[in-house]
Amino acid sequence: MSSSKTFTGNFFEDFRLGQVLKHATPRTITVGDVSLYTALYGPRFAIHSSDEFARSVGLPRAPVDDVLAFHMVFGKTVPDVSLNAVANLGYANGKFGVPVYPGDTISTSSTVTGLKQNSNGKTGVVYVNSVGKNQHGHVVLDYTRWVMVNKRDESKPAPEAVTPKLPSAVPAEELHVPATLRPENYDFSLSGDKFGWSDYEVGEKIDHVDGMTIEEAEHMLATRLYQNTAKVHFDQFAANSGRFKRRLIYGGHIISLARCLSFNGMANAFRVLAINGGSHANPTFAGDTIYAYSEVLEKIELPRRQDIGALRVRLVATKNHPNADFPYKKDGKYDDSVVLDLDYTVAFPR
Amino acid sequence: MSSSKTFTGNFFEDFRLGQVLKHATPRTITVGDVSLYTALYGPRFAIHSSDEFARSVGLPRAPVDDVLAFHMVFGKTVPDVSLNAVANLGYANGKFGVPVYPGDTISTSSTVTGLKQNSNGKTGVVYVNSVGKNQHGHVVLDYTRWVMVNKRDESKPAPEAVTPKLPSAVPAEELHVPATLRPENYDFSLSGDKFGWSDYEVGEKIDHVDGMTIEEAEHMLATRLYQNTAKVHFDQFAANSGRFKRRLIYGGHIISLARCLSFNGMANAFRVLAINGGSHANPTFAGDTIYAYSEVLEKIELPRRQDIGALRVRLVATKNHPNADFPYKKDGKYDDSVVLDLDYTVAFPR
Amino acid sequence: MSSSKTFTGNFFEDFRLGQVLKHATPRTITVGDVSLYTALYGPRFAIHSSDEFARSVGLPRAPVDDVLAFHMVFGKTVPDVSLNAVANLGYANGKFGVPVYPGDTISTSSTVTGLKQNSNGKTGVVYVNSVGKNQHGHVVLDYTRWVMVNKRDESKPAPEAVTPKLPSAVPAEELHVPATLRPENYDFSLSGDKFGWSDYEVGEKIDHVDGMTIEEAEHMLATRLYQNTAKVHFDQFAANSGRFKRRLIYGGHIISLARCLSFNGMANAFRVLAINGGSHANPTFAGDTIYAYSEVLEKIELPRRQDIGALRVRLVATKNHPNADFPYKKDGKYDDSVVLDLDYTVAFPR
Repeated sequence: MSSSKTFTGNFFEDFRLGQVLKHATPRTITVGDVSLYTALYGPRFAIHSSDEFARSVGLPRAPVDDVLAFHMVFGKTVPDVSLNAVANLGYANGKFGVPVYPGDTISTSSTVTGLKQNSNGKTGVVYVNSVGKNQHGHVVLDYTRWVMVNKRDESKPAPEAVTPKLPSAVPAEELHVPATLRPENYDFSLSGDKFGWSDYEVGEKIDHVDGMTIEEAEHMLATRLYQNTAKVHFDQFAANSGRFKRRLIYGGHIISLARCLSFNGMANAFRVLAINGGSHANPTFAGDTIYAYSEVLEKIELPRRQDIGALRVRLVATKNHPNADFPYKKDGKYDDSVVLDLDYTVAFPR
Repeated sequence: MSSSKTFTGNFFEDFRLGQVLKHATPRTITVGDVSLYTALYGPRFAIHSSDEFARSVGLPRAPVDDVLAFHMVFGKTVPDVSLNAVANLGYANGKFGVPVYPGDTISTSSTVTGLKQNSNGKTGVVYVNSVGKNQHGHVVLDYTRWVMVNKRDESKPAPEAVTPKLPSAVPAEELHVPATLRPENYDFSLSGDKFGWSDYEVGEKIDHVDGMTIEEAEHMLATRLYQNTAKVHFDQFAANSGRFKRRLIYGGHIISLARCLSFNGMANAFRVLAINGGSHANPTFAGDTIYAYSEVLEKIELPRRQDIGALRVRLVATKNHPNADFPYKKDGKYDDSVVLDLDYTVAFPR
Repeated sequence: MSSSKTFTGNFFEDFRLGQVLKHATPRTITVGDVSLYTALYGPRFAIHSSDEFARSVGLPRAPVDDVLAFHMVFGKTVPDVSLNAVANLGYANGKFGVPVYPGDTISTSSTVTGLKQNSNGKTGVVYVNSVGKNQHGHVVLDYTRWVMVNKRDESKPAPEAVTPKLPSAVPAEELHVPATLRPENYDFSLSGDKFGWSDYEVGEKIDHVDGMTIEEAEHMLATRLYQNTAKVHFDQFAANSGRFKRRLIYGGHIISLARCLSFNGMANAFRVLAINGGSHANPTFAGDTIYAYSEVLEKIELPRRQDIGALRVRLVATKNHPNADFPYKKDGKYDDSVVLDLDYTVAFPR
């Protein structure tokens, strides 16, 4: 007697505009997660590495890396949103809220904010606004992503097409800087380099130089740590008869690698404030070596903060291609080496 | 001057009926171990994932996964019991006691409860009853396993054959449910699916669908985490001249994978109460992709608990073979794809 | 507009005698790091494994493995000292101070104590004395290492050659035993074997028997955990056009493996007191299987301690070669199988 209790994920016609998805399962984040994050990517940002350093700038202890918080929120949405996704199309309007500390429990829910069936009638685009909150109900991350999802039954009628209005970048007045964060005693000799906000210029490109090769065990450990259940990352037997013949690496793994590589040249980008947009330009597989470079897109003064400034940055990751030549797009198409094009906003001491 | 201080493990003739083995080394379990367990297997059971969820059902915080507690107890017994084992023959009468919380220190001892030399005179079967206790002396796990062990000296006389009486399953009155565990506020929207004890039927089979490929680094990280010292898992140089030419994966690694895969279809099996029996039907190696299915064997009412019920379940893991056809035995022999046949009892909210 | 903010490391002519390097970034060590260390190497020393055991010998809780503390200090020095190193030539006068406990934050600085340009005019040897301190300013490790570093500009004049005076071994009166460490209740049945200080003899050699094969994911996870940024460990794409065509394994990874393998025969070597010297005799790569043996060089009575004695030990690690024949040097050259020759001092209960 075979049972139908297994969850096979939502298909395009299962989503309704305005629908709220309360995601399983809440997750308490611990110092164990932080150590794994360090082992997986080698981050060295002082504020996340040292309780003492964090205290010196007004925080109660070292918060977890903002991108780790992102993964924990993102992972929760996968079973309900993207188990049947054909592609993860984009991110927008990602705003980081209160820092996450070890011991915090994050719960996530998503609201369907857009639906648009594709003209082929086989797939559609689903927009979700996902919000992660800590145990006090404070928002730790609020962002929108959109994915292309298969229809289960092509004969189902298309819903009215609705596309949410999304900003090209999170505006300065919506960037959240923790109130107690006061970098007046920020020690630039302990943080890794001497460059603060005022040292960067719009248009500046920084080759982060170092490369990191990815192993199968590493991306799978990471993706399971985030309780991200997308099958394509884990099942080589199924992959053998798939398009790539390989397990696909979770796009967020590349975001973390690129962010950690960016330390060399941006060691004082001590807080991610926003994810304005992002694209996983090409797939990555175990054995690929990831490099990264940054381009400063905008210098942002933060309201009521003379001590902290923000940079809007394009963080580009490439595979098997060091970045002295800063590859990006040709004729509107990404260079084959580009795997990540992330538009994000980071805070620096001024 | 070469020394003989290296411990080479016990051989069959070293065991005595009634002998008590106090195992080295006690182990404090931490949130670091929990994070690694999450990274290795991707468990999502809400009670282990979230301190807040655990509190909502009457526990002080998130206990560690019961199978992690099993590994920590099992690992301790390896140097004394199975370093010279030819085969791990079976488990029985495994009863989980008080939950294990991060910070607890587990100590383990074993009593030899059976001895039976094989007719070939070269090996014998040793039965041990192993008990893990926390720092308060409370039992966290009590189980019997039996292994086939080499003799060092075949001329040594055979001991009187004694085989312990073991139940085919742990009876309901011996299943331990933590007294404070009260799932009246159990949130089925946060736990991963809606199915409680009353939704399952005897004979029901659930294909857990997802597959997980194993890497060498993963099973070795896991096995060392449990301080399990069996050489066959770690030494490829020695394996090159062995039977399989490969490092063998610790059978418990497959139990954890299967248990975590079972979330998809049994998300509310929130506590392992007993291991009734188990067999590692075929060996597994790095590169294998593990799938799992469950068959409900029995529905058990728990004494004095209207809020929680138990299911006795057969959890089967296969390699490189998705389980739509539920492979098991043919003519009394396991199908080549079957790697684990575990008979265990789990608790659900009713 | 390309930027020069990326740090490319110091070259030989950047170092000055007496120069103090305050290393980024301080690091809070947690139980998460301890769990990873356990998963990576499988240590079983009771004092590090169990809070209860540590309390039974007078410590407040389980300290972290001394070699983990070494890696955390060492890792910090890499960006400033050895990013452009051709070779890590040696260690000397390494003294472990107060134990490190989870929650401690370690900061590291180094003083340049020697400089000697090589006759080829292309490289030079830099000696640094590195000191790691906890958040209370107490020294956790103080050691000297020397590395061969490239010159950026060969035309720069050679500095006056200065070589620090270093002892061949840390003398007994400089060995630090924590004052509260009192092994009178040390439980030899829980610690793994029965051999105390008085059971070892000078000249005794112990084959630690077990072998451990290394995977790429493992050594990279370890090296990133220590925030060691040396490129040769991580970048396969660059390695493809290098000398070995492979990622090189961090030498400290082998120290930890050898130390953990030494448990089998030296389970009660419960504290590393000193690193007297060390050489990474041959490179190691993923796929190599590591074995280890120890030779007792000296028995040391510790001043004012009747309860604890020290052994000076040569710990040798080999690759793909079990150690029944104790390979070492032939005609002054290391045997091809030898990868580590570590001269260190460990404490035992007497």
